[in-house]
Amino acid sequence: RASPQLRPTATAPRLPSSGQLFAGPAKAAGAGKPGRAVAGARIMRPDDANIAGNVHGGTILKMIEEAGAIISTRHCNSQAGEPCVAALARVERTDFLSPVCIGEVANVSAEITYTSRHSVEVQVNVMSENILTGAKKVTNKATLWYVPLSLKNVNKVLEVPPIQYARKEQEDEGKKRYEEQKLDRLETKQRNGDVIFPVINPEPHTVGYSQSSLIHLVGPSDCTLLGFVHGGVTMKLMDEVAGIVAARHCKTNIVTASVDAINFHEKIKKGSVITISGRMTFTSNKSMEIEVFVDADPFVDEPRERYRAVSAFFTYVSLSKEGKPLPVPQLLTETEDEKRRFEEGKGRYLQTKAKRQAQMQQAARQ
Amino acid sequence: RASPQLRPTATAPRLPSSGQLFAGPAKAAGAGKPGRAVAGARIMRPDDANIAGNVHGGTILKMIEEAGAIISTRHCNSQAGEPCVAALARVERTDFLSPVCIGEVANVSAEITYTSRHSVEVQVNVMSENILTGAKKVTNKATLWYVPLSLKNVNKVLEVPPIQYARKEQEDEGKKRYEEQKLDRLETKQRNGDVIFPVINPEPHTVGYSQSSLIHLVGPSDCTLLGFVHGGVTMKLMDEVAGIVAARHCKTNIVTASVDAINFHEKIKKGSVITISGRMTFTSNKSMEIEVFVDADPFVDEPRERYRAVSAFFTYVSLSKEGKPLPVPQLLTETEDEKRRFEEGKGRYLQTKAKRQAQMQQAARQ
Amino acid sequence: RASPQLRPTATAPRLPSSGQLFAGPAKAAGAGKPGRAVAGARIMRPDDANIAGNVHGGTILKMIEEAGAIISTRHCNSQAGEPCVAALARVERTDFLSPVCIGEVANVSAEITYTSRHSVEVQVNVMSENILTGAKKVTNKATLWYVPLSLKNVNKVLEVPPIQYARKEQEDEGKKRYEEQKLDRLETKQRNGDVIFPVINPEPHTVGYSQSSLIHLVGPSDCTLLGFVHGGVTMKLMDEVAGIVAARHCKTNIVTASVDAINFHEKIKKGSVITISGRMTFTSNKSMEIEVFVDADPFVDEPRERYRAVSAFFTYVSLSKEGKPLPVPQLLTETEDEKRRFEEGKGRYLQTKAKRQAQMQQAARQ
Repeated sequence: RASPQLRPTATAPRLPSSGQLFAGPAKAAGAGKPGRAVAGARIMRPDDANIAGNVHGGTILKMIEEAGAIISTRHCNSQAGEPCVAALARVERTDFLSPVCIGEVANVSAEITYTSRHSVEVQVNVMSENILTGAKKVTNKATLWYVPLSLKNVNKVLEVPPIQYARKEQEDEGKKRYEEQKLDRLETKQRNGDVIFPVINPEPHTVGYSQSSLIHLVGPSDCTLLGFVHGGVTMKLMDEVAGIVAARHCKTNIVTASVDAINFHEKIKKGSVITISGRMTFTSNKSMEIEVFVDADPFVDEPRERYRAVSAFFTYVSLSKEGKPLPVPQLLTETEDEKRRFEEGKGRYLQTKAKRQAQMQQAARQ
Repeated sequence: RASPQLRPTATAPRLPSSGQLFAGPAKAAGAGKPGRAVAGARIMRPDDANIAGNVHGGTILKMIEEAGAIISTRHCNSQAGEPCVAALARVERTDFLSPVCIGEVANVSAEITYTSRHSVEVQVNVMSENILTGAKKVTNKATLWYVPLSLKNVNKVLEVPPIQYARKEQEDEGKKRYEEQKLDRLETKQRNGDVIFPVINPEPHTVGYSQSSLIHLVGPSDCTLLGFVHGGVTMKLMDEVAGIVAARHCKTNIVTASVDAINFHEKIKKGSVITISGRMTFTSNKSMEIEVFVDADPFVDEPRERYRAVSAFFTYVSLSKEGKPLPVPQLLTETEDEKRRFEEGKGRYLQTKAKRQAQMQQAARQ
Repeated sequence: RASPQLRPTATAPRLPSSGQLFAGPAKAAGAGKPGRAVAGARIMRPDDANIAGNVHGGTILKMIEEAGAIISTRHCNSQAGEPCVAALARVERTDFLSPVCIGEVANVSAEITYTSRHSVEVQVNVMSENILTGAKKVTNKATLWYVPLSLKNVNKVLEVPPIQYARKEQEDEGKKRYEEQKLDRLETKQRNGDVIFPVINPEPHTVGYSQSSLIHLVGPSDCTLLGFVHGGVTMKLMDEVAGIVAARHCKTNIVTASVDAINFHEKIKKGSVITISGRMTFTSNKSMEIEVFVDADPFVDEPRERYRAVSAFFTYVSLSKEGKPLPVPQLLTETEDEKRRFEEGKGRYLQTKAKRQAQMQQAARQ
């Protein structure tokens, strides 16, 4: 029996059949609206995956973000005016519905689904395809928000050309999503003071036992034309750290099951050193929640101090050789803070579970 | 029995022994003409190959082009004058004579074989070497044409310093090759209007069933000092798409057998988004021909429209586990255009076959 | 005034002229000993360099090690017998004689200079070439030791086929180098207990202020055919961490000036997580010494505990925009251990300086 995070039916109500999934953006492209759809396919390579052959969630997130960046930058430059680059502002919570393997083709399609005055909502779908058997599976369905920044003045947010909606309700629903995410962004001020301290000789399954951190020097290929890190690059590194935390905790093959909404409050400049730290916050019977922080040191040419650029929660599951979810060791909490974070994680877990059940009931009624 | 595309003997008349192959550039270097030869060796890694362990044709093409770019840029700057970067203008038809595997070393050697006033012909040979057994095989023998562009003004083509020929016939033969390729370049205006439209619920083995596309955001490491995409990077992406088309069609392990002459009419600038699309045009009993288009969107800072930068035909074969060519399913053509393209592909196939037979007969007579 | 580490004249006595440098391996290949020489050329890309355009020392070290691995694996398999893969055992101290820039070509040539019963000494030279101006500079001259491990049984060290020496002294000198390095390897048991602890709110220019660490999940492309990490991959990551430590300390453009001898006592297996940690140990007026540790966690399939795989000292200098060495802030030592390590670093610094002066005097006498 599959874990909730990996059950494809769980999000069925929102997903068209896989045929439509790809036909959707393709049709749009054929219909002479090239700015609103983009599609691409890439073979998954050994370096994209862990040793069990499962493609890293971070590889998928990076592909999603690249497609989103292309379509939204293209759209925002589609009218005469100041040239701009679309910067990732937010990714909505996304589930990894089924694992992708080395040698499979990941088909990514992106479509603009809403525009506000200063932001673009992009829907990106990923479908894995075993090109030997022809089998296709929906892997991912993500929603991203981008903001157009002037190429000449990176601090200037430009106006977004409006899109046409087929039906009035589409616009209304988009506006509702826009308002919701705006509220969440305002609320979610980063957990700034929170730092991960190492623990000497930690006991197995404690928080200190699995916590990990990574530093990365931001190179040219990590960056957009504006010289700031692609959101997808950041997410890939975050997933890398989260995966190491999960593997250290349960010492089995682990895969990304979902990522909570991520807000990108602060840009990260080329040449910065970023520290990505992860610690486990919660375990259910078959899942682990890992909190990840990204801190940037804008060294060399800037006087600015280290700052928290992004933070997020990743959920991982442990898989058997047959791809079935395994039980995970319970996280041992020691300090008051760890206990509090465990309870908060439990709250998020139960809330997600409830939402999913509500969606399924709604789907069953339809 | 090996397929015609993979039969090493087929091009034997034009190939020196493998000893000479490598001694050639080495001797040249020793003989005090360091500008005319370049050599490189690289271990093939898992990411360079498909899941069967065969190195992608695109990986080889990229290595070939890098060697060509080094030697021609070096040569064009060997006399005092305006500094320049050699840009790839054309690659002659090239056969992949034997597959290369992970762990083998690819030895690349390049030599300048002809110079016209404004262009350089480079011959690049690739030899795969199993460093455990010592076995060596000629993998590839490619001819590339480069044009020196001024570093200060990218639209200015500079003059090429002439090379010395050992024998007068070498110059005459080079001149003949130069004239031939020039004619072909003028004729081959890109199939510009041709676009690939998606098909909904396509039948197996139709054109629509296997056609594929990939998008790529051009990053700094994809580009030369002039800020334009390396020809080798483009060819690697083209081979990736062609490989997906071939695998979708026959659902077996496939490898690149040959690439038709490719003309690089239009440069692609850093920051562009390129769409690489492939569709099958023809199948023989044991080979598939795939047409690949590269379209560039020079977004953000340029007012220019999407344009066709390159197009080419790749031939793939399907291999059994023992490395023997397998029969491929016949391509089902539906529209008039598809039938026409199939016939054109058949023409190219028969012409190549006839040329190869003529070469073999000539070799037998010698 | 140039720093000692960057002055090309410093090692002049041991270096042939740049013409000979490259003619060497080329001649050997031409002379029918293709197994003893290998050469390669690669264009340096933005991703290989820091934001000032200087290629990372780690990029160079990785290229050097790849050339060494190819030539020694080839040699060790040159006689009938058990197939094997040459594993890096040691890199001798190496100086980075001049910085390499983006767009330049790095020419790497490798030659086997000595063989003992179970090990191979490889000399690798790197020459940077500005292909626009034709200017060439010797960048690096490294000596590496490899040991052949059986492909069937990784714990079995095989015998090395002996090489022929042109002169008897070459063999004697090689044997002397072999004995010296063997002694050093036995002495340098890893500084195993030594771990880097983070410091909260450290003062600028203290050890805690700049210390850094990085984790890396070992992927397939990081590994040899035996499934163990290439020594070059490890060195590249070590240089990355050392560079971040140096940059955090002096907040200017920094480049690798030299690397002390590195012994690779323990192999690292595919799928491991490695932690690379660096801390500053010593500063002179114009150089910084950074100690780097590599620890491996063989998680998932092995019961083994974390172990110290490698450790080394890197020396960095800070460069002005004109490429001149700048003064660096003095390291503030706080604990007894830090003071002791500072004195030890000073000892290494003075010893290296004395050796270099002795070499120069010897050269002047010749």
